Amino acid sequence: VAKRLEKFKTTIFTQISTLAVKHGAINLGQGFPNFDGPEFVKEAAIQAIRDGKNQYARGYGVPDLNIAIAERFKKDTGLDVDPEKEVTVTSGCTEAIAATMLGLINPGDGVILFAPFYDSYEATLSMAGAKVKSITLRPPDFAVPIEELRSTISKNTRAILLNTPHNPTGKMFTREELNTIASLCIENDVLVFTDEVYDKLAFDMEHISLASLPGMFERTVTMNSLGKTFSLTGWKIGWAIAPPHLTWGVRQAHAFLTFATSNANQWAAAVALRAPDSYFVDLKRDYLAKRAILVEGLNAVGFKVFPSSGTYFVVVDHTPFGHENDVAFCEYLIKEVGVAAIPTSVFYLNPEEGKNLVRFTFCKDEETLRAAVERMKEKL
Amino acid sequence: VAKRLEKFKTTIFTQISTLAVKHGAINLGQGFPNFDGPEFVKEAAIQAIRDGKNQYARGYGVPDLNIAIAERFKKDTGLDVDPEKEVTVTSGCTEAIAATMLGLINPGDGVILFAPFYDSYEATLSMAGAKVKSITLRPPDFAVPIEELRSTISKNTRAILLNTPHNPTGKMFTREELNTIASLCIENDVLVFTDEVYDKLAFDMEHISLASLPGMFERTVTMNSLGKTFSLTGWKIGWAIAPPHLTWGVRQAHAFLTFATSNANQWAAAVALRAPDSYFVDLKRDYLAKRAILVEGLNAVGFKVFPSSGTYFVVVDHTPFGHENDVAFCEYLIKEVGVAAIPTSVFYLNPEEGKNLVRFTFCKDEETLRAAVERMKEKL
Ligand SMILES: CSCCC(=O)C(=O)O
Ligand SMILES: CSCCC(=O)C(=O)O
Repeated sequence: VAKRLEKFKTTIFTQISTLAVKHGAINLGQGFPNFDGPEFVKEAAIQAIRDGKNQYARGYGVPDLNIAIAERFKKDTGLDVDPEKEVTVTSGCTEAIAATMLGLINPGDGVILFAPFYDSYEATLSMAGAKVKSITLRPPDFAVPIEELRSTISKNTRAILLNTPHNPTGKMFTREELNTIASLCIENDVLVFTDEVYDKLAFDMEHISLASLPGMFERTVTMNSLGKTFSLTGWKIGWAIAPPHLTWGVRQAHAFLTFATSNANQWAAAVALRAPDSYFVDLKRDYLAKRAILVEGLNAVGFKVFPSSGTYFVVVDHTPFGHENDVAFCEYLIKEVGVAAIPTSVFYLNPEEGKNLVRFTFCKDEETLRAAVERMKEKL
Repeated sequence: VAKRLEKFKTTIFTQISTLAVKHGAINLGQGFPNFDGPEFVKEAAIQAIRDGKNQYARGYGVPDLNIAIAERFKKDTGLDVDPEKEVTVTSGCTEAIAATMLGLINPGDGVILFAPFYDSYEATLSMAGAKVKSITLRPPDFAVPIEELRSTISKNTRAILLNTPHNPTGKMFTREELNTIASLCIENDVLVFTDEVYDKLAFDMEHISLASLPGMFERTVTMNSLGKTFSLTGWKIGWAIAPPHLTWGVRQAHAFLTFATSNANQWAAAVALRAPDSYFVDLKRDYLAKRAILVEGLNAVGFKVFPSSGTYFVVVDHTPFGHENDVAFCEYLIKEVGVAAIPTSVFYLNPEEGKNLVRFTFCKDEETLRAAVERMKEKL
C-alpha cells in the first residue's frame, strides 16, 4: 500500500457493519436508512433505464441535473449559480470531497479540520499531501473555539473544511460561528470546503450555507448529495458547487477519478431535487419523531446524551457503563447487547479525544429504534 | 487547480463529443455505443431498485457481484480468485485505475506506460506523484519494442501499465510479447497494472490476461468493467482483481475516493456476468460486422488504415488529406465533413508522435457507420 494510505484502516463503517451482521446486532452504526427512498424517484430511475439512459453521462453531469442542482441551491440559499460552469456532479459526496482535495490542494498546503471529522477528509487530504491541523469541538455543545481557530490559521493555510449539520456530533454551526469563520477566511485569503449533506435534516436551527455569506461564494466549494435527503445512500449521486476557478480544479480531478456518474441515477436525481416542499417537510417531521425516540431511549438507558440539532446522528458519553474506551464499549455493545454504534476516536487526529464518545444513528424505522433501546435497557 | 493536474485539459472525449453535438457531426469519437444494453441486464437493475437495493452497497462490492466477477475470471483465465479478498468493485474501470495508482504508487516511483495511452493513466499517475516513462507502439503493427522496454526498466521501476486489447490502436498484445513482459517484470520485481476492458472484443487473436502467465498473478492488478462488454458504459461498474496484498492498497484508495458503487447496478452486473456464452458470441459477431463496414469504408475513403485486432476502435493515418496534424484534421472532419473522430496526440507524452493518427470507433449501429463513411466519401 502506498505511504499516503498506510495509517488508515478499513473504514470504521465497514468494520462495524460487518461486525453487526456477524453478531445479529441492530445496526445503529453506519448511516444508512433501513427504509426505502421515495417511489417517484425510484420510478424516475426505472424510466431512465427503460429510455436508454445507459451510456456515459456528460462528465460533469447530465445537463438537466446540473440545472436542478442550481435551482435547488437558489431556493435554499438565494444564490444564482451557473449550472454549466459552477456545478459538478460526482459519485457521491465522498467523490466530491476527494476531487476537491486532489483538484485544489497542493502538497504542503495547510488545511484545517474540525474534529471529530468524517474519516474520508483526512484520508483524501493525505492523498493530496496536505498538512492537516485540527481543531476539536468539545461536548457538551461542540462550539467552535474561535480563538484557537484564529491562532491556528497561518500564512500556509489554504483551506478550512467544515461540515454542517455536523457528523458525528449533530452540531449545527451557528450564524455567529459562520460569520466569524467567514471573516477569518476573507482576512487570511483561505478557501472553505463545506460538506452539507445533512442540510435537509436541520432540526433546531436554520441551516446556513457558508457560501451564502457576503464575500464567501468566490472562495467556497459547497458539497452535497442525494443520499441522505432522499434515503438513497446507495445511488452515489453527489455534487460540488463552486465558482468557475475552483470548479475547474474539482472537474479535472473528477474527470480522472471516475469520469462520469451513473446516468440513469442522475436523471432520477433531477426529478428528486424538484420534489414539492411537502417532501422536505415530511422528511423532517419523520426524523424529528425518530430522534425523539432514540434520544429519550438513550437518556433512559443511562447515557449522557449530547444534543443533536441536525443530521441523523446523536453522540453520547458511554462512561457511565465503565468500559475503557469507545472501541471497547462498542465491541461490548455489539457482542453482548446486540446493538451497533460507531466509536468516535477514529474521527480525531488524536484518538484519545474521542474515547468517551460514541455515535448512534436514528435513520431507522421507529420499531427498530425502539427495539434497540429495549435491548440496551435490558442488557446494559 | 492543484499542480498535479495543471497540465491536463478537459478530456479529449468531452471536447470532441461537445464539438460533435454543436456541429451535428456523426460521433465516431468517444467510445460509447449508440445502441442500448441487453434487456435482461436492464430488467435486473429495475428489479433491484424495486427490491430496495438503494442503500450503500458494501464498500468493496455487493457480495454476489464479487462472486460473479471471480466466476467470470475463472472461466476466462482458469485462475481461482477469492471474491472476498481479491476482488474490488469500483465506479467504472476509471476509478479502478485511480485507486490502483493512489493505493499502490508512491511519489517518485517509476511507472512505464505504452503510448498511445488512455488519458487517465497519466493524470492519475500524476496524482500519485509517479515518475512516468513511456514506450511508443508504432504503426503499422504497434509491436512492443522489447529492447527499448528492457532498457527503460530501472531499479526505480515500480510498475508497468498495459492495456490489451489496446485503446486507441486496436492492437492486441501477443503471447510472445506478454511472455517477455512477464519475464522482465519477474526479473526486476515490477508490478503490472492491466486494463482489459475490451477483453470480450478480441477479434483476430485470443485475449490473454497477463495475470494468467506463470508467476504473474501475485504481481498483477487486472482491471475490467461492465461497460464495453454489455453496452452499458453509463452504469460505471468496474473492478480490480489482485492478490490480497495489492487488493489492500486498491481498496484503501477506493474507500476514500467513492466508498462504494451504485448498489442496483451492481446487482444487475452480477446477472450480466453470468450471461450464457451465446451472449458473448453474438456480441463479437455483431462487432465483426461493424468493424468490416468501418474498415472497408475508411479504406475506400483513402485513409491508410491500421489493423484493429480488438477493441471497438481503429486508427488511421490521415496525412493523405493534407492537414497539418491530427487536431487540425479532426476539427476539419467535424466542421466540414460532419464526422467526429479522436485525435491521438493527447495520448503520448510527446504529442508530436501522434500527429498523423486519428481514431474512429465502430461501436455504433451499422446505418450510422455507413452514413459516416458516405459523408467522408462525399466531402473529404
Ligand atoms: C460512506 S459510509 C458512512 C455513512 C455515513 O455517512 C456515516 O455513517 O457517517
Ligand atoms: C470515459 S470516456 C472515454 C470512452 C472511452 O473509453 C474512449 O473513447 O476511449
